Amino acid sequence: MTSTLPKAVVLLSGGLDSTTTLAIARNQGYQCYGLSIDYGQRHRTELMAAQRVAKILGAIAFKAIRIDLGSIGGSALTDPSIAVPELPSEEIPVTYVPARNTVFLALALGWAEVLGARDIFIGVNAIDYSGYPDCRPEFIEAFEKTARLATKAGVEGQEFKIHTPLIHLTKAQIIQEGIRLGLDYGITVSCYQADEEGRACGVCDACRFRREGFLAAGVPDPTVYR
Amino acid sequence: MTSTLPKAVVLLSGGLDSTTTLAIARNQGYQCYGLSIDYGQRHRTELMAAQRVAKILGAIAFKAIRIDLGSIGGSALTDPSIAVPELPSEEIPVTYVPARNTVFLALALGWAEVLGARDIFIGVNAIDYSGYPDCRPEFIEAFEKTARLATKAGVEGQEFKIHTPLIHLTKAQIIQEGIRLGLDYGITVSCYQADEEGRACGVCDACRFRREGFLAAGVPDPTVYR
Repeated sequence: MTSTLPKAVVLLSGGLDSTTTLAIARNQGYQCYGLSIDYGQRHRTELMAAQRVAKILGAIAFKAIRIDLGSIGGSALTDPSIAVPELPSEEIPVTYVPARNTVFLALALGWAEVLGARDIFIGVNAIDYSGYPDCRPEFIEAFEKTARLATKAGVEGQEFKIHTPLIHLTKAQIIQEGIRLGLDYGITVSCYQADEEGRACGVCDACRFRREGFLAAGVPDPTVYR
Repeated sequence: MTSTLPKAVVLLSGGLDSTTTLAIARNQGYQCYGLSIDYGQRHRTELMAAQRVAKILGAIAFKAIRIDLGSIGGSALTDPSIAVPELPSEEIPVTYVPARNTVFLALALGWAEVLGARDIFIGVNAIDYSGYPDCRPEFIEAFEKTARLATKAGVEGQEFKIHTPLIHLTKAQIIQEGIRLGLDYGITVSCYQADEEGRACGVCDACRFRREGFLAAGVPDPTVYR
């Protein structure tokens, strides 16, 4: 009887946030289609984690779209000549990938329209985050409006909803919600420079927020550090 | 002394409209960076035409980003099992590629931010067009707002301008403008199903609008039909 459930495209990196987002979408009764973007990021173990997470959490389908954002450059995540910072920064950090979430949401929108889905989930967060502009609620609202005007479905009067269930949660609250939904965070990889076995560096922004999150949530940290 | 001119990213398919757009951007004094998206479209001769056009019109650089929209499907331009229509349609036609211009503009935005460019040109047209929703002025305005909120440059108070110099022109007016700027349209390929030599089918929507445009403009049609 799953065919009567609404469909949703869930952007999935295999990290803590997007995995929790998928668990929330499933818990809200959506048939989930996991979408990973292989954008030439350094942490390729992310993609393997994303596929594993999709399977374990019962996504209907998983798709990885390859797009070479490295040819554009401008970020420590796609340009090997820019080092991943290992200390906190006051400014937007060099791990910012220009227009990344705009590209991701545009691709999710394209797949959603083909699937007949009107719901897209993305695990952006405006609290314990790295200062990326494309994680803010005002960006999401602007994209939602763009999505309506961009599509055939929009012309026919249908709305796309961009769900951001984590946007106002602290990392600790995200982890508590995931635990409540039965998630094993040992299957996720958040580190910007994880090694081939998915072991985390422990010092990049992503590791730092994750580690502090488990500490604040009072939950044992299952991350394997190298 | 070209380094003092403002930079612009120009989306370039190698067709009549985008080539005219590049000529207009150059004529307005921009240093132009041509961007083609290889999205698995049927008409691969487009890409060769785009590269040729960028070179002939003196673009500073040309980049083709490959992204497999065929894995999403849903369009006659990316799915070989859907035929390209050869008769006019009242509805949005099956050549519509879901979220295409949103994806294209997102990638142009990413490259623009890396280049330090604040201007993006796209040859969309709301008059003699195929009824695609993502060619309308209201879509462009919504994307412009999204671009400002999505980027580091936007956070720092800078605006991105999406230029659509063709949006209110008829095909005949576009051709007349190109001729005025010295364009040879023989270097362009518009056909949705051009053959390997770039010869046009003469019957698809793109061919029809182009052929009628030359006729209405009173300009000899340099297109090679097969």
